[in-house]
Amino acid sequence: MDINQLSQGLDTIWVVLTAAMILLMEGGFALLEAGFVRQKNAVSIIMKVFVDIAFGALVFYLIGFGLMYGKDAGGLIGTSGFMLGGGLGHIELSITHETYWLFQCAFVIAVISIVSGAVAERINFRAYILYTIAMTGLIYPIAGHWIWSTGGWLGKLGMIDFAGSAAIHGLGGFAALAAALFIGPRIGKFSADGRPNIVPPSNLPLASVGAFVLWFGWFGFNSGSTLSATNGSIGHIAVTTMLSAAAGGAACILFTMFRYHKADPPMVINGSLAGLVGITAGCAFVSDVAAILIGAVCGIVMVLVTELLEARGVDDPVGAFAVHGVSGSLGTLAVGLFATKELASETGQGYYGLFYGGGWQLLGVQALGLAVVCVWGFAVTWLFLKGINRIVKVRVSRDEELVGLDVGIHGVPAYSQEHDFIEVHEFRKDVKG
Amino acid sequence: MDINQLSQGLDTIWVVLTAAMILLMEGGFALLEAGFVRQKNAVSIIMKVFVDIAFGALVFYLIGFGLMYGKDAGGLIGTSGFMLGGGLGHIELSITHETYWLFQCAFVIAVISIVSGAVAERINFRAYILYTIAMTGLIYPIAGHWIWSTGGWLGKLGMIDFAGSAAIHGLGGFAALAAALFIGPRIGKFSADGRPNIVPPSNLPLASVGAFVLWFGWFGFNSGSTLSATNGSIGHIAVTTMLSAAAGGAACILFTMFRYHKADPPMVINGSLAGLVGITAGCAFVSDVAAILIGAVCGIVMVLVTELLEARGVDDPVGAFAVHGVSGSLGTLAVGLFATKELASETGQGYYGLFYGGGWQLLGVQALGLAVVCVWGFAVTWLFLKGINRIVKVRVSRDEELVGLDVGIHGVPAYSQEHDFIEVHEFRKDVKG
Amino acid sequence: MDINQLSQGLDTIWVVLTAAMILLMEGGFALLEAGFVRQKNAVSIIMKVFVDIAFGALVFYLIGFGLMYGKDAGGLIGTSGFMLGGGLGHIELSITHETYWLFQCAFVIAVISIVSGAVAERINFRAYILYTIAMTGLIYPIAGHWIWSTGGWLGKLGMIDFAGSAAIHGLGGFAALAAALFIGPRIGKFSADGRPNIVPPSNLPLASVGAFVLWFGWFGFNSGSTLSATNGSIGHIAVTTMLSAAAGGAACILFTMFRYHKADPPMVINGSLAGLVGITAGCAFVSDVAAILIGAVCGIVMVLVTELLEARGVDDPVGAFAVHGVSGSLGTLAVGLFATKELASETGQGYYGLFYGGGWQLLGVQALGLAVVCVWGFAVTWLFLKGINRIVKVRVSRDEELVGLDVGIHGVPAYSQEHDFIEVHEFRKDVKG
Repeated sequence: MDINQLSQGLDTIWVVLTAAMILLMEGGFALLEAGFVRQKNAVSIIMKVFVDIAFGALVFYLIGFGLMYGKDAGGLIGTSGFMLGGGLGHIELSITHETYWLFQCAFVIAVISIVSGAVAERINFRAYILYTIAMTGLIYPIAGHWIWSTGGWLGKLGMIDFAGSAAIHGLGGFAALAAALFIGPRIGKFSADGRPNIVPPSNLPLASVGAFVLWFGWFGFNSGSTLSATNGSIGHIAVTTMLSAAAGGAACILFTMFRYHKADPPMVINGSLAGLVGITAGCAFVSDVAAILIGAVCGIVMVLVTELLEARGVDDPVGAFAVHGVSGSLGTLAVGLFATKELASETGQGYYGLFYGGGWQLLGVQALGLAVVCVWGFAVTWLFLKGINRIVKVRVSRDEELVGLDVGIHGVPAYSQEHDFIEVHEFRKDVKG
Repeated sequence: MDINQLSQGLDTIWVVLTAAMILLMEGGFALLEAGFVRQKNAVSIIMKVFVDIAFGALVFYLIGFGLMYGKDAGGLIGTSGFMLGGGLGHIELSITHETYWLFQCAFVIAVISIVSGAVAERINFRAYILYTIAMTGLIYPIAGHWIWSTGGWLGKLGMIDFAGSAAIHGLGGFAALAAALFIGPRIGKFSADGRPNIVPPSNLPLASVGAFVLWFGWFGFNSGSTLSATNGSIGHIAVTTMLSAAAGGAACILFTMFRYHKADPPMVINGSLAGLVGITAGCAFVSDVAAILIGAVCGIVMVLVTELLEARGVDDPVGAFAVHGVSGSLGTLAVGLFATKELASETGQGYYGLFYGGGWQLLGVQALGLAVVCVWGFAVTWLFLKGINRIVKVRVSRDEELVGLDVGIHGVPAYSQEHDFIEVHEFRKDVKG
Repeated sequence: MDINQLSQGLDTIWVVLTAAMILLMEGGFALLEAGFVRQKNAVSIIMKVFVDIAFGALVFYLIGFGLMYGKDAGGLIGTSGFMLGGGLGHIELSITHETYWLFQCAFVIAVISIVSGAVAERINFRAYILYTIAMTGLIYPIAGHWIWSTGGWLGKLGMIDFAGSAAIHGLGGFAALAAALFIGPRIGKFSADGRPNIVPPSNLPLASVGAFVLWFGWFGFNSGSTLSATNGSIGHIAVTTMLSAAAGGAACILFTMFRYHKADPPMVINGSLAGLVGITAGCAFVSDVAAILIGAVCGIVMVLVTELLEARGVDDPVGAFAVHGVSGSLGTLAVGLFATKELASETGQGYYGLFYGGGWQLLGVQALGLAVVCVWGFAVTWLFLKGINRIVKVRVSRDEELVGLDVGIHGVPAYSQEHDFIEVHEFRKDVKG
């Protein structure tokens, strides 16, 4: 047994296991979203998650990975490695390129899953498939190339986004906002006078468990991003991830008790996720105390932004923008404030943030990168949805929405009682979708 | 710290962690099956999963493991290692025999769990316990010995079944078919005129999440089967597993949209699983593209076989045969077509399939082994059920089936409302089961 | 690559991955408890789990860890390492103190989660937050210090509690009993004549899946407690854990079939958990056969104690005391009977139990330690609840209990139907909690 072989084996199982944990997050998204939407749309949102993981993986294999991590052209785009077909010599890792692909594949599936929540209960299934192909094949890979690939222009500027507060959550969150605005609010979400109504979650226990599954997967997401099991930051990353999530949840419990005179379950669920999103960029570079601060701020701001969107007539059924877009942005900027090389040194990278004598430079780079990625995610999503709308209407018909997408599009309800029987010929009659 | 000790530790945690992931699949089976059956039987199917894991583990410890991996007798059966009581020197691994047992135990529990779905909603609980003992103590261990043990006759012929498309899914799927035929269709599944009715799943969100949990566990199932963390194939195995599952899901989405004019949720759930089952034999030996092909074919064939069984009046409530039996068979044969030594070399084994210049030889061995294992699983299951039927009726009474097995056999409903209260003496009155 | 770096990396990912598995158990607790309670309290019990993980992690970071593992004072308490602020040189591990903290943090969250079940459906949310701070900041850390820290007086006496049958489950279980007694039974649990009523679980499939998730996490709990991936006991620990859980489940299936003439689902769920709890102290020190025995005994005794509590008018909604308190005690004592140094030697510790020639000494130490920890958990919990009761009533009002804590305290039901809409101003009206 040779030590390098051992080291490669160690890194490989680390990346495979953490990739599997990230992929289990799709189960978490399914629980969270099915629990947050109404019963009549619980299956349809889960079918979108199947589209995310099934089409996302294949499209990222065919196109996305090459555009993201292939040989760099002008700092803007990758040009090799499609279908893992060579031209990846510039990626120097102890793990194989295939193993690296799997981990990155888990990431892209997370991005598209963020968007699925914002268009819940009203998007046409075929349109969603087309958008998924665009997001996993083009929108995310190109932005990701700028930040993470060898030669990407934002990375070269010194932008730090360890596990993707910007690349994953900022991009996904702003894409979700664009999609929510494009498709418009659900029927009944706002009264005629514009006053918002609460659409109570159909199954809060499922949604809560989804949050715990996502929390679990996040340890793979952040710690696994070291891509090497001997990286001295792994323990620290896991701890900052834990503390930020706990702070996000605790802050939401206390803040909603203060603001609504009760601990608001959906807010607490999203508050923990906001803490996780917020620490994703800086998990390897900030201190434990900074992590607690980041998590708490993200949790509270998430509540305020959720209220703001409602007041502005924006309908984001599961809070995708408030959780991912906003916390992702705060977390990306927080690196510019709290990053300290001492911590980061083990990772062989990292700089000093504003509060650690680094001045405004890193903060500026983070702000620039964040702005670019979010604008890109928002604008290109809008354009694609406009284009897709020409092929197939992005929004379902009023009848389909009222009856619910489960029966309206997929021909089967999420929950059935004993006595239900459906004649096969009846079940298989033509249904749109 | 000595390097061999390090290597053993690495292999040990790899096998323990992947075994735990496979065992979590029991939670996935519970979700999948409870979601697919009717509310009135949701608890009873989960109680069968408890029988699988509880009795399965103990019986495999007492008898099964020895028959499967004990000292070989004539290539047919193992003769040592019962209760891990020595006589296992022929198993040369870096991990302890106990650790090896845990991994194999997770496998046998998966096999019996496959059958539990096919007899859902109508099998007598006591009969199921007896059958579980037979499957985990005899049926699977003996067939597994032929393929996987040192000296097993199919293994010596050169049969390749890396993680068990044949040994686990082919065997389990054909046993499930035998059990479904033996016990007969559920009341109401077919109209008097023989026309099939759909029994709509009681809880599709749970079933879907079950699929994601199974997907997660499958990374442990396939990659963990290397039994060594320094096996160079681990990354490739995880990638082929991912691609095949994605292809199975995507193919089912598109195929059901074409065939039923809607993406059919239960079919999509099973399509992903079909892709996972199909790649299980060849995950270490076939290319990424072959994996996509295998997954897509398994996904589509699963739909057709499901229709075929319905047309033939066979009632397999969760599609155990279509998913495991058929995809397991396709996957086993696919090795004979797509295996290529380049990939397999790192595993220290492997051959060339028909499409890679290996001629018909490997394909023939795979077909022979598959046929033997499936016939064995079907026939011996049938015989055991006939025998068990003499001791206790395999099928519940008509009344129990109509009221549902939860209340009829286990005395408690799966879902209760606030107002429900049950007097203890009432609850504990005699109930069959 | 240097071998020590490799070894540290290996140990680090082992502890991080197993810590993540333990933290996923919070999802398991959420499922188990939400499934066991009534629909009208399903969200409130999950909100308590959020309090456990969010407040528990922060309080343990600020205070608990220092009191538990800080520099010892008189064998009674730790005095350094608050906020991981140094003074931890006496902890000699290959992993960082931060990584060690994460693993211990997952433990403390498990302890408080045990208590959450016993007070389900009737505790005031604010009071629960205060108690959580007491348990995670003081009660558990101090008792844990006695057993596990360098210099703790029970540890020095030779008490063995590998993964916490006493420190986690005995303490948590007896604290749960104190809380259940202090707060009193739920309205309707007992008839006027004192006869107990069954409050049927609202969602047994969720509860069952919770058990499987906990089972999965337990492999991290027990095997991970080695804190080193090269510890030769890891495989054995995982196997005894598996066998004991299986024995607990199988014993409950058979025993309830004999006693109630049916396999009782809630009992079977708790029987598996009882087996897991019972093996937690001895997993590294007892043989496979002893593990089976321990699991079976714990499973059966759990049933009897559950009946006993009901007969005595104690209301423990999810069986926290019967599962954790009793099985934890049995498991702690079992070490005094079955421990054998051969097995333990690899862990660098361990003694001989009564049945292995060790005489009564170890058994005596185990009994003493167990008694001390359980009395401490019970008594201090009672005192804290008395104190908290002065600040905010520990029990909710009769109206809140009757309407259910979900709507009564948190203002939202666990499960909603399509037609439900809530006006925001209505939703955000003042609600106690």
